[in-house]
Amino acid sequence: MPDEPGVGELVQAALDAKTKPRGSLGRLEELAVRVASIRGTTTPAPLRSAIVLAAADHGVAARGVSAYPQEVTGQMLATFAAGGAAVCVLAALAGAELRVFDLGVRSAFRDRSVGDLRIGPGTADLAEGPAMTIEQAEAAIAAGRRVAAGLESEGFGLVGLGEMGIGNTTAASALVAALLGVDPEETCGPGTGLDEAGVRRKVEVVGRALEVNRPDRDDPLATLAALGGFEIAFLAGVAVAAAERRLVVLLDGFITGAAALVAERLAPGTRTAMVAAHVSPEPGHRLVLDDLGLRPLLDLGLRLGEGSGAALALPLITASLAILDRMATFESAGVTDAGR
Amino acid sequence: MPDEPGVGELVQAALDAKTKPRGSLGRLEELAVRVASIRGTTTPAPLRSAIVLAAADHGVAARGVSAYPQEVTGQMLATFAAGGAAVCVLAALAGAELRVFDLGVRSAFRDRSVGDLRIGPGTADLAEGPAMTIEQAEAAIAAGRRVAAGLESEGFGLVGLGEMGIGNTTAASALVAALLGVDPEETCGPGTGLDEAGVRRKVEVVGRALEVNRPDRDDPLATLAALGGFEIAFLAGVAVAAAERRLVVLLDGFITGAAALVAERLAPGTRTAMVAAHVSPEPGHRLVLDDLGLRPLLDLGLRLGEGSGAALALPLITASLAILDRMATFESAGVTDAGR
Repeated sequence: MPDEPGVGELVQAALDAKTKPRGSLGRLEELAVRVASIRGTTTPAPLRSAIVLAAADHGVAARGVSAYPQEVTGQMLATFAAGGAAVCVLAALAGAELRVFDLGVRSAFRDRSVGDLRIGPGTADLAEGPAMTIEQAEAAIAAGRRVAAGLESEGFGLVGLGEMGIGNTTAASALVAALLGVDPEETCGPGTGLDEAGVRRKVEVVGRALEVNRPDRDDPLATLAALGGFEIAFLAGVAVAAAERRLVVLLDGFITGAAALVAERLAPGTRTAMVAAHVSPEPGHRLVLDDLGLRPLLDLGLRLGEGSGAALALPLITASLAILDRMATFESAGVTDAGR
Repeated sequence: MPDEPGVGELVQAALDAKTKPRGSLGRLEELAVRVASIRGTTTPAPLRSAIVLAAADHGVAARGVSAYPQEVTGQMLATFAAGGAAVCVLAALAGAELRVFDLGVRSAFRDRSVGDLRIGPGTADLAEGPAMTIEQAEAAIAAGRRVAAGLESEGFGLVGLGEMGIGNTTAASALVAALLGVDPEETCGPGTGLDEAGVRRKVEVVGRALEVNRPDRDDPLATLAALGGFEIAFLAGVAVAAAERRLVVLLDGFITGAAALVAERLAPGTRTAMVAAHVSPEPGHRLVLDDLGLRPLLDLGLRLGEGSGAALALPLITASLAILDRMATFESAGVTDAGR
């Protein structure tokens, strides 16, 4: 697990020697310290970054828990492949490579830019029984672990998590309610644009999913299988293996937060490799970040997913490392360091 | 003054047609609408950006209102010229050109990368009388107006404001207290790193400045002259002329906020061209942003100045325009637009 106390102190000392009042770059300095500590090096720049975007369908979508029909998951997969989605634009701007994976959309979309890691044509309806079998959840996690290992061997130092799946805020709301032991009302929000009646329906569906599946929060794998999704299980696997390999795990919104929570429960300590890009308006997101002890970098009302928030926060990480790497010191610049 | 109601609506309609739920990019969408409205065009990208960094000294620095000695202003000017300061690193990362001006540091620093707009060798002590004469304040404003005009003619569409001047949080605190009619306790903070006794001293100095100068908040020019600084007057001039010319005015921290407040009082409506990059821990900063009706993009505990926060927020503006410019529409991507 990432934990190198010496590195953080050395990096803070290096930042304190730069021509600026101590700590005056605020959370940017904390970010440089955190990234260096995760990477286990006082010189973490340049940090090669990827955004892993996983798409899958959800049986629960048939219950009208999304403002969009299920076919949109596959259509967006095609849009990711064509480079026209928000995250395509934002990842390119941020200098991150986008890696798209099909974990199981209903109708398979074949394109050489989309990695085929299909577990099945979408999950079962979590309000009727387990969304996945234990074997399916394990296969998705293993796929995620393999992708993280591949990123490490390619030289990536940061992986941003992204997802697409009509209905997946419902799965995430159920997972978070189960793992944190809170009521569905506290974790269900409008997602991509439900009205009040839609949110009430989502709360009922999540409540029913909890009743039917009776998840045991001390068994995170079974809870994940019962309430999660292929892409969520996959991203949990990415997070666990990335953390083991000292890659920075950059979270996006509520669904990647749910995957991160699963990862932390499966492999305690995984959270020490995480950075929270932003906090979304989904009510469950802040609960997740609080549980993981993460402070979001941005609060811009983002509720798109896809890894778009991760791509938007990535320039702050790049900036924090550039400060560490390129700024002059009081000594090198001949500036009087009389301050604190 | 920037105000083109049609443009904002057209841009929001263009954003609504993109392959994402309506409004799901939150404040990023507001930002694209605002920038397009200021620029008066539905296609504001690419936006060529400059950060104007003005340095000057302050007579009040002799009263121990800063954690740093006055000589640091000139030393930092040399560091800006050498490219070693935080804003040099951050502006380059954000793709902004840095323009540095000497408005009056105590000992002139000659370098061809620093524009010589010196009004004098620092202001007088605002706790003893006016910091500037009316003529000096007018000359600094006029210099700022000329710089903004030059940026427009060079093709810049955005100007970020940056400043450096030991003692200038005291001048800003006095200005903001006078213009908003609040007590010095509400506008004085630790600046670059004062301890509690230092903040108390700053409050006393600002209180004395208000007593001695008896500024009339309905006379913003005289108030600026009495309590401001050369760089603050200059940046107010930049803001006013940039707004007239439909350049986006990107604010940095508390001192540029004080300059923005002066600009709005001198030329009401200037604020409609402004974007607030961040909110700093200085207590007066939020008061200023509230008065100007601006919501900051970032809240990262930044308290460095130099335009560093403006440079850190600039990628969000760039991203907002890239979304408008490059994302596919539901129609072009063949995605079902059933959502709201």
